[in-house]
Amino acid sequence: MTISEPGSRVPAAAGLKIVALAGGIGGARFLRGLKAAAPDAEITVIGNTGDDIELFGLQISPDLDTVMYTLGNGIHEEQGWGRRDETFVVKEELAIYGVTPQWFGLGDRDIATHVVRTQMRHAGYPLSQVTAALCDRWKPGVQLLPMTDDRVETHVEIEDEDGRRFIHFQEWWIKFRANTPALRIIPINAESATPAPGVIDAIKNADVILFPPSNPVVSIGTILSIPGIRRALMASKAPLVGVSPIIGGSPVRGMADACLAAIDVKSSAFGIAEHYGARANGGLLHGWLVAEVDNDCVLDGLKVIARPLIMKDLETSRDIAGAALELALSFS
Amino acid sequence: MTISEPGSRVPAAAGLKIVALAGGIGGARFLRGLKAAAPDAEITVIGNTGDDIELFGLQISPDLDTVMYTLGNGIHEEQGWGRRDETFVVKEELAIYGVTPQWFGLGDRDIATHVVRTQMRHAGYPLSQVTAALCDRWKPGVQLLPMTDDRVETHVEIEDEDGRRFIHFQEWWIKFRANTPALRIIPINAESATPAPGVIDAIKNADVILFPPSNPVVSIGTILSIPGIRRALMASKAPLVGVSPIIGGSPVRGMADACLAAIDVKSSAFGIAEHYGARANGGLLHGWLVAEVDNDCVLDGLKVIARPLIMKDLETSRDIAGAALELALSFS
Repeated sequence: MTISEPGSRVPAAAGLKIVALAGGIGGARFLRGLKAAAPDAEITVIGNTGDDIELFGLQISPDLDTVMYTLGNGIHEEQGWGRRDETFVVKEELAIYGVTPQWFGLGDRDIATHVVRTQMRHAGYPLSQVTAALCDRWKPGVQLLPMTDDRVETHVEIEDEDGRRFIHFQEWWIKFRANTPALRIIPINAESATPAPGVIDAIKNADVILFPPSNPVVSIGTILSIPGIRRALMASKAPLVGVSPIIGGSPVRGMADACLAAIDVKSSAFGIAEHYGARANGGLLHGWLVAEVDNDCVLDGLKVIARPLIMKDLETSRDIAGAALELALSFS
Repeated sequence: MTISEPGSRVPAAAGLKIVALAGGIGGARFLRGLKAAAPDAEITVIGNTGDDIELFGLQISPDLDTVMYTLGNGIHEEQGWGRRDETFVVKEELAIYGVTPQWFGLGDRDIATHVVRTQMRHAGYPLSQVTAALCDRWKPGVQLLPMTDDRVETHVEIEDEDGRRFIHFQEWWIKFRANTPALRIIPINAESATPAPGVIDAIKNADVILFPPSNPVVSIGTILSIPGIRRALMASKAPLVGVSPIIGGSPVRGMADACLAAIDVKSSAFGIAEHYGARANGGLLHGWLVAEVDNDCVLDGLKVIARPLIMKDLETSRDIAGAALELALSFS
């Protein structure tokens, strides 16, 4: 991928310290655009680890890996997650052994990442150090921090013919395709977790803070559930700008609406803006970037800008990130 | 593979309880021949686990797997170990991460076996139950028992430019190709290990006991180092017949001579016969099957028969196993 218009960089962003909270695919694509829009900025990514899961004895961090693979040029582009040129030999063999679960798309290349992570975790390294070690290979061009080194797992309460129960978010998302309504979505252990080393300092020192179009509930919301992170965001003098993951009432991708329903937030650019809240009224956001179709989104005290929001390729992602950045810089 | 001469079965073996001690490739091919020679016998295999190693957090039992894959029709025929149609994606990726060691040939299909084993071991199942579970898939047609459920690891003392030290047998065998002389070969923890459930009973109830042409030091020797196993063999009334892994002074395959040197045993059919000893003189063997080139092998009190001993294919393996079996039956 090449950028045809170097002019759409944001020159004022050179040298800026940018902090972005991020989930998986949407966050990763936005971040790739952000790197293109602000190649000389110092970007710190606080990644969601609530999707983390241990399967087959392997410790898997889907969102961190999606960010790392995407920014490190190893992602399966069309799919948005997992490795390019992936094979699934181990998964096929495990299925022949009858090992469950079989709904998780565990590729062979991907497994190597989990083997390294699991070994390092068992050797006593915290997830943040493991992530740094993995990034030594991938060189994502950002500092990628897990939101916490503690184990926090997002679980979803559902009710179906098997009764009312909690299942891991990944099971709900992948196996159930979020079709069974989420009665509650709980980041288990979040209340006793602490932010990973560097997270609070990065927020404190940030010049700009961005919410990519990641899932407001199970990505951004989970990060915000770690005690201290929301307070640090509110205490920061840096402008905080978010990008709506909902366009004209529908999620850009994924099933964010099913998550929003669980917390009684309307699946719309406005609904999410209201959920995050305007900083002028005690909420998080200074600015809010919405799609052109949502240009009627008005929230008291919030600066809203409308732009094309479909991240088709690096160019469109860069333009979106650039617009978010310029919106943020308009506050300084 | 088909058997051209059903006549070379050993009809007298029908219903017999046969116990065989076995290492990896040589043992596995012999056992495949044994199944063909005695399809109606009840075969119990006591497998060497001294080669077991934990790599990348995976618990690997090379010899058990070689027996299981060979008898279960999943082996890489030419190579003799590992899975047919194997791929090495995970291994390649681990190498890119810079993870060591890189000398172990860990295939993707094979990894699934180790994942299942490791998970079951972590869940508390002993190796013998794990092996039975894996055999549920492979249906090797024999009862495959690890020699022990305890962790026993064969280590080799070497001396080179890095000094005098112990390394895991696998490292010596694969990485060093047994080129650096073994000063000592020690089955670590063998003295405090106990035979796995079923091992002693199988020996007690055996009608025939066989030593395939497995390595007399690091395969058969390691099994014999588990307290109780040698005593049970000596106490058994079943004839014990061995097949020489050395033909005309050279190992049929592998580097058995390098192991024999470490215990000061001459690398010859006679040397090994003397090492095992004739039962008539307080040793293990009633009978000893050697290659035709070694038909001058004479040991006091030992019945020696010479036959072609190269296991080229199922037919030749069956003939060798059949000859061993007939030699054993000649004692009853």
